[in-house]
Amino acid sequence: MAEALKVGVAGLGTVGASVVQLLAKHGGQIARKSGRAVTVTAVCARDRNKDRGFDVSSLEWFSDPVEMAEKAEVDIFVELIGGDNGAAEECVRAALQRGIHVVTANKALLAKHGVSLAGLAEANNACLNYEAAVAGGIPIVKTLRESMAGNDVSRVYGILNGTCNYILTRMEAEGIGFEECLADAQRLGYAEADPSFDIEGNDTAHKLAILTSLAFGTKISSDDIYMEGITSIASADIEAADELGFRIKLLGVAQRTETGIEQRVHPTMVPKSSAIARIDGVLNAVAVDGDYVGEIVLVGPGAGGDATASSVVADIADIARGDQTPVLGMPAADLKEYQRARMRMHEGGYYIRLSVYDRPGAFAEIARCMGEAGISLESIVQKRHATHHAPGKYNADVPQPVILITYETTEVAIKEALEVVMSKGVVSEKPQMIRIEKLS
Amino acid sequence: MAEALKVGVAGLGTVGASVVQLLAKHGGQIARKSGRAVTVTAVCARDRNKDRGFDVSSLEWFSDPVEMAEKAEVDIFVELIGGDNGAAEECVRAALQRGIHVVTANKALLAKHGVSLAGLAEANNACLNYEAAVAGGIPIVKTLRESMAGNDVSRVYGILNGTCNYILTRMEAEGIGFEECLADAQRLGYAEADPSFDIEGNDTAHKLAILTSLAFGTKISSDDIYMEGITSIASADIEAADELGFRIKLLGVAQRTETGIEQRVHPTMVPKSSAIARIDGVLNAVAVDGDYVGEIVLVGPGAGGDATASSVVADIADIARGDQTPVLGMPAADLKEYQRARMRMHEGGYYIRLSVYDRPGAFAEIARCMGEAGISLESIVQKRHATHHAPGKYNADVPQPVILITYETTEVAIKEALEVVMSKGVVSEKPQMIRIEKLS
Repeated sequence: MAEALKVGVAGLGTVGASVVQLLAKHGGQIARKSGRAVTVTAVCARDRNKDRGFDVSSLEWFSDPVEMAEKAEVDIFVELIGGDNGAAEECVRAALQRGIHVVTANKALLAKHGVSLAGLAEANNACLNYEAAVAGGIPIVKTLRESMAGNDVSRVYGILNGTCNYILTRMEAEGIGFEECLADAQRLGYAEADPSFDIEGNDTAHKLAILTSLAFGTKISSDDIYMEGITSIASADIEAADELGFRIKLLGVAQRTETGIEQRVHPTMVPKSSAIARIDGVLNAVAVDGDYVGEIVLVGPGAGGDATASSVVADIADIARGDQTPVLGMPAADLKEYQRARMRMHEGGYYIRLSVYDRPGAFAEIARCMGEAGISLESIVQKRHATHHAPGKYNADVPQPVILITYETTEVAIKEALEVVMSKGVVSEKPQMIRIEKLS
Repeated sequence: MAEALKVGVAGLGTVGASVVQLLAKHGGQIARKSGRAVTVTAVCARDRNKDRGFDVSSLEWFSDPVEMAEKAEVDIFVELIGGDNGAAEECVRAALQRGIHVVTANKALLAKHGVSLAGLAEANNACLNYEAAVAGGIPIVKTLRESMAGNDVSRVYGILNGTCNYILTRMEAEGIGFEECLADAQRLGYAEADPSFDIEGNDTAHKLAILTSLAFGTKISSDDIYMEGITSIASADIEAADELGFRIKLLGVAQRTETGIEQRVHPTMVPKSSAIARIDGVLNAVAVDGDYVGEIVLVGPGAGGDATASSVVADIADIARGDQTPVLGMPAADLKEYQRARMRMHEGGYYIRLSVYDRPGAFAEIARCMGEAGISLESIVQKRHATHHAPGKYNADVPQPVILITYETTEVAIKEALEVVMSKGVVSEKPQMIRIEKLS
């Protein structure tokens, strides 16, 4: 057997500690599988004396990851620091420049600098593996980079953020509001103290940007992503979705269209019968539509120290085995420019929830606006507030919820129609609009 | 770029024809991804003049696959002939002996000769890839061989036969019987004229034998698989399952226990809330429980020319990229002996359907038998036939269905208890017994 492969781990948080322990626990098996022993020889963290459940005394210690990347005698540099620039970027560049293979779980870094880092890795004949950066323990990077090599992908989509999925699942299961769910998620450690990065969709967008590049062979373009978070989702939407045969999920979707590739992150109505509708709680799921394979769906834990460590170690084992896959599926120079499809050209069905003043002709006015915009309605649900059920309590000033489900139309048509509806003075607030995704 | 990789395809049925067409259609992309062009230069089939939708005139033609394996100037030999011995085995051995890489979709061959072929491949420094052999387009072989490298697997299970899943799905959806569904499946091409290999569980067992080896690092042992098909599943079982919160699926399960590894194929009660319960029709799904990653589930098409070709081509692209993974995840010499856990030691819950003579004390007799065997009952459902609802029509000789759901017990306990029940003369026929799988 060849000499042991030396690994340096920068960042000893939950994931880093789990990686060190995993390599110690299953080292024999990993050596048998990859034909080479793998040993952690160097680590980097701020506090050397913190108890992490394992002994660091025999390891080379660094407190500066860039210094470790520049000086440590390692074959693989594992970056688990996080952040899209600063120390994380510097240390990854420094390691690659020395021809040291890099394994990272850093989605933000990849989303921002992926193409440039891929070029640097290639120029130095080093691997840059990042299975853990997208959907944690789910092997979607390998599936797209390798297993889908013979497919033309038309769409990749998924539930890529466990925090949002946890909140939406609880809102539905318990009929409670967004704020209450978020507070619970924070209490249980499923959401950060500042949750905006998750609930506004940024985290999903970073992961989607990477998936798009792998699926379509295009340069990563994380600035060109349409993004809507889940903060506007009301219990009324969750209930209406349920009645109409849908569930609401925050999806990241990248889809080939006639005018380019759509990248979008938004709350989405998915049919209850679809595989993606049934992904509950903190689980992640990713689906890929390929012209030969059809649709495959991968489900698993999207976060957590051990699940993420599993992916980091799989990346290490690939390098130990001598497998060198192009960072973004093909050489960086072969990646096509990302051609953005404008969101206003998006085609699909829409769920619209309106608060309509209960006056004669109000509904006819709305129906006319939709008809004039060329939008056909698949279903209309009008719900009266309880106060209206009691005879004599009729009050035209209390707006009533009306739900519309449209047939396929364009984003520009629906937005313009809703502008016109609002200008007519028949609705009391900005309409809620949620896109419907066509799924098998 | 390196010289083009020359591929010979033996067997030009649905899958073989699709492989040739895929490589032609997406050749440019595959070359960019693997750093090497891939060209089909030789094919083997019986009839040269059959119209397969592509031109074979420029390809080296063989009518004997063994001759092709021995003589063709190819780098990769693709075996799509089928069968666990004869020409398929001979040509694979002949190719490996020449150091030619082999890609195959042949589960029967792998299940029977996998360890021996793995050793032959290693001795000749050749790859033997077989992603398409298990669950068609789903990348489960790669996931187990590579992505799970850092995990100790406790269980792998799945729906591995589309024919059985199609039949069970239709029985449930339409309330029709097994025979009628099978006839329909045959008419639609989802079942063979002789369906026994599918419906008796043999096909699932072959795939399971391969998964077991990859998951647990043991030698393939396809003769040590407990096997029950779906022919005994009655509409009454499907209905009762539905009422009790289960669905019935034919699962292949390999599970580590204290006494060894269980390999079993049988109709299984799975909770409706589980991911596997929602896999309908001809789809396949495979789930793996790893100590670090937790549970991941892969869903996709388990058969079909194009989906299978997608996996065959992914295997070819891996070879083109220079990736050489040990055939069974680690060198054949490192595989442990398979230690069989006896089925009588299996632990789990059970669904029991009895036809009970409706006489005073009959039910008490059954309850006593179960109690004496140490079996606790989680639920008991007694259903009266419609004729009993009419007053005055009571007839003790018409047996009534009684459903029992047990708490966890052992196979030996349940079997002995049912023997005793039968000896008491209180049931009119052999009890139906379906295992319940604990799933998250």
